[in-house]
Amino acid sequence: MDRVLQSWEHRCAASTVLRFIDINLRGAGQVLFQDNPLSGLLFLIALGWGAIADGRPHVLIGGICALVTGTLTAFWLRADEASIRQGLYGYNAILIGLALTFFLGPSMTVLGYAMLAGAVTTIAMLGTLNARMPWSVPAHTYPFIFGTWIFLLAAVGFSGIPSEALPQAEELPALSPDATSLQRIAEFISYLLSSISQIYFKDHVASALFIIAGLAVSSIAAALFALGGALIAVVTAHLYGVESELISSGIQGFSPVLTAVAFGTVFYRPSFRVALYAALATVVTVVAQSALNTLLTPLGIPPLSAPFQLAALLLFIHKANVEPVEDDRRAGDAGP
Amino acid sequence: MDRVLQSWEHRCAASTVLRFIDINLRGAGQVLFQDNPLSGLLFLIALGWGAIADGRPHVLIGGICALVTGTLTAFWLRADEASIRQGLYGYNAILIGLALTFFLGPSMTVLGYAMLAGAVTTIAMLGTLNARMPWSVPAHTYPFIFGTWIFLLAAVGFSGIPSEALPQAEELPALSPDATSLQRIAEFISYLLSSISQIYFKDHVASALFIIAGLAVSSIAAALFALGGALIAVVTAHLYGVESELISSGIQGFSPVLTAVAFGTVFYRPSFRVALYAALATVVTVVAQSALNTLLTPLGIPPLSAPFQLAALLLFIHKANVEPVEDDRRAGDAGP
Amino acid sequence: MDRVLQSWEHRCAASTVLRFIDINLRGAGQVLFQDNPLSGLLFLIALGWGAIADGRPHVLIGGICALVTGTLTAFWLRADEASIRQGLYGYNAILIGLALTFFLGPSMTVLGYAMLAGAVTTIAMLGTLNARMPWSVPAHTYPFIFGTWIFLLAAVGFSGIPSEALPQAEELPALSPDATSLQRIAEFISYLLSSISQIYFKDHVASALFIIAGLAVSSIAAALFALGGALIAVVTAHLYGVESELISSGIQGFSPVLTAVAFGTVFYRPSFRVALYAALATVVTVVAQSALNTLLTPLGIPPLSAPFQLAALLLFIHKANVEPVEDDRRAGDAGP
Repeated sequence: MDRVLQSWEHRCAASTVLRFIDINLRGAGQVLFQDNPLSGLLFLIALGWGAIADGRPHVLIGGICALVTGTLTAFWLRADEASIRQGLYGYNAILIGLALTFFLGPSMTVLGYAMLAGAVTTIAMLGTLNARMPWSVPAHTYPFIFGTWIFLLAAVGFSGIPSEALPQAEELPALSPDATSLQRIAEFISYLLSSISQIYFKDHVASALFIIAGLAVSSIAAALFALGGALIAVVTAHLYGVESELISSGIQGFSPVLTAVAFGTVFYRPSFRVALYAALATVVTVVAQSALNTLLTPLGIPPLSAPFQLAALLLFIHKANVEPVEDDRRAGDAGP
Repeated sequence: MDRVLQSWEHRCAASTVLRFIDINLRGAGQVLFQDNPLSGLLFLIALGWGAIADGRPHVLIGGICALVTGTLTAFWLRADEASIRQGLYGYNAILIGLALTFFLGPSMTVLGYAMLAGAVTTIAMLGTLNARMPWSVPAHTYPFIFGTWIFLLAAVGFSGIPSEALPQAEELPALSPDATSLQRIAEFISYLLSSISQIYFKDHVASALFIIAGLAVSSIAAALFALGGALIAVVTAHLYGVESELISSGIQGFSPVLTAVAFGTVFYRPSFRVALYAALATVVTVVAQSALNTLLTPLGIPPLSAPFQLAALLLFIHKANVEPVEDDRRAGDAGP
Repeated sequence: MDRVLQSWEHRCAASTVLRFIDINLRGAGQVLFQDNPLSGLLFLIALGWGAIADGRPHVLIGGICALVTGTLTAFWLRADEASIRQGLYGYNAILIGLALTFFLGPSMTVLGYAMLAGAVTTIAMLGTLNARMPWSVPAHTYPFIFGTWIFLLAAVGFSGIPSEALPQAEELPALSPDATSLQRIAEFISYLLSSISQIYFKDHVASALFIIAGLAVSSIAAALFALGGALIAVVTAHLYGVESELISSGIQGFSPVLTAVAFGTVFYRPSFRVALYAALATVVTVVAQSALNTLLTPLGIPPLSAPFQLAALLLFIHKANVEPVEDDRRAGDAGP
């Protein structure tokens, strides 16, 4: 895998066009914190598969157009090149492009609206990276969240932009208590996978597998934490009695997976203690998800990844508080 | 009084169990900014008295369980010991435990939910203390406020957690204009005391007296400012025509008392000029209370101490702007 | 013009009363970012003209009383004199005075309420200037926006303060597609001017002209960007299909004009590249305006200048990213 990436990197160094593609792929990969073009490609395949299977190919187009617009905006405004190359100016743009075309439907006006939004989130990201945020939470999908809310709420007042009602969660059969345990396990696994694939608004098993593959090529730990996060989310949702359609359509799983990957592998180095803390954060994300559902449903806007950001805001603390002490000592020994 | 506290401190130094109790008592004391175990004990008595008289002993249990969970969480995550010993990781936890068991009712699931919330507020407090907040407002009940809102809003979506409607303010006879002035004075004093006792969701006269005693053993000024704050709140509420049930049940008094004690004795050193400023802040807190009532009632969540935090956000400025100039000079003379 | 101002400055230096008037005029001027007493005077004339023509002279009185209260509060709390002299403690106070008397109607209680609010916004401004805001967005009308929302929401709960419903936008004839182009141009210009005059809640052509004059005496660029911003706002609103009454009554134009002047002449030095960026920010302000209309209408509070602040929050980035590179080089050459 590393050799493939090295060879790709060599070609990118020689070609402006390939470099531009590389940056956009990394932007797609950063949606799940992976600075890796292969991860980004697999995430795009997962997205495309889900979008086409769902009869909404325009969502894929909207995502890619907003992503490219965002990347071009970052160049136009002379964002620092290191961040551009890591795809940090791409993931908010692709997410807002997907969200707006998903919720506002196919039309050229919406596509232009999504590209405007892609540019705006990129600039907001630039401001965020420049700012000294008081919390120093490292992963910001704030531009995506607030941007999508603003553009969706604005569409309600614009007669030129079609603002359909938010799509209802499809009615799926609730967990039947008399099912055989084998059936239940199969259902359970399907819930799990749909939780993961929801990161791109789709709940198809194949999409979930592509996403896990995209994580695994970059970080085995990230793939495992994604699975673990989905597991904890489904169990917690059952425990507190979240309505079963919400669980099964994966809407409750979207943010918890982000939380598990972020707390388990991005904010802190993976370890048993960190895994415990990530599990706590995942449970809190399910609570935050339910709270935001209650709060935002009357406004007609979806929680998006806000439950993850809320959990990060509440629970992101210094590494020294969370990581095992042994690691700190070893790190101390290595120093002068 | 000081000798009692010194002797207690000696015993705590020798015993881990007593130290743990001391920390939790100080946590209860910090609800009204007092780093004093005796204050905490008196506040707990005030709370217990009110809870039992009200037929809701589970509220006391919920508060204490969340407090202990919070303190243990602070130890688990290696929070700095000085802050732990001052009870700074306790007051948000006890407040959220009281609020959740008060609003969600008695049940083991709710108790577990309150303890989870106690842990979460403690971690959020840890993050807040570590963060460089842009406003440097020193007293943070943000974790309590936002935590309670999140856990209450989430309960609406959880069928496993009973979310009764928020309790209606009891209908009390409005101020009758033809009453004798003696009666009116008695009513007025009763309003005053219920304002103070509302800090723990109860409006019993005995609770109010225990709270004032708890303040007085630690700081006479704090007790006086609490009384003054309640007085100004009741007068302002009458002036602007707040509905009388709200005044008499003390709901309007909760936050203004916090504001008066904080602005008069915690943020600034007590003086005539500071008292004037604290009075202004108390009036603004009544306005903020009314605004938050309007805003939050449709969401089904209570303002809690948010009016105090809002007033602090608007009005907390440098000591040099608020304290008398003479004090600064004297302080300057003492320095090198 | 400069000689008139110099002579005025000489007289102010000699007279405390004139200095106090000068400070309050600059406070009025800072509403549109102009530290210039003549601009402030022209803005006050625009306001007075509109208020009297509209049969609401109390709005003018409310604005001036809150302005004077704010300035006196700044002196009482020993705000730094440089900021006081630039009128930085005045513009939030006059704006909240205008807004509260406009929305709550004429009465002595409301006037006192507006003066209290003027003092509060000034103190909030003092706290804001002292704070290290994470975003460093230079122009803060936050105290005005949040202050007005709080005092308006609070009025709903105060029976002593008349809280009429927010005034409906007057029904104006929509753009008729069969009108001659000359008529349409006249309509268009009238929309433009009403956009500008809305900065003071009035949509009278004469007011708009006084405001443009007030900008021009201080900065020709500011006057041009105000016109350009109004133009872009009206065009964008037509493009996205904002309801025509909203456009024609100028409500959509208020914040975009602020954005255009701020991004074009205050945040960055005027240039072609900066003008492009200011145009983007103006379009985003129209989107933010529509989003806030959707969000705030159920709460019964107006967006005020929040769309401008939201656009500034999203789009304010370093000068090096936005200003032309040539300027930086020249600036670099001038240095040592």
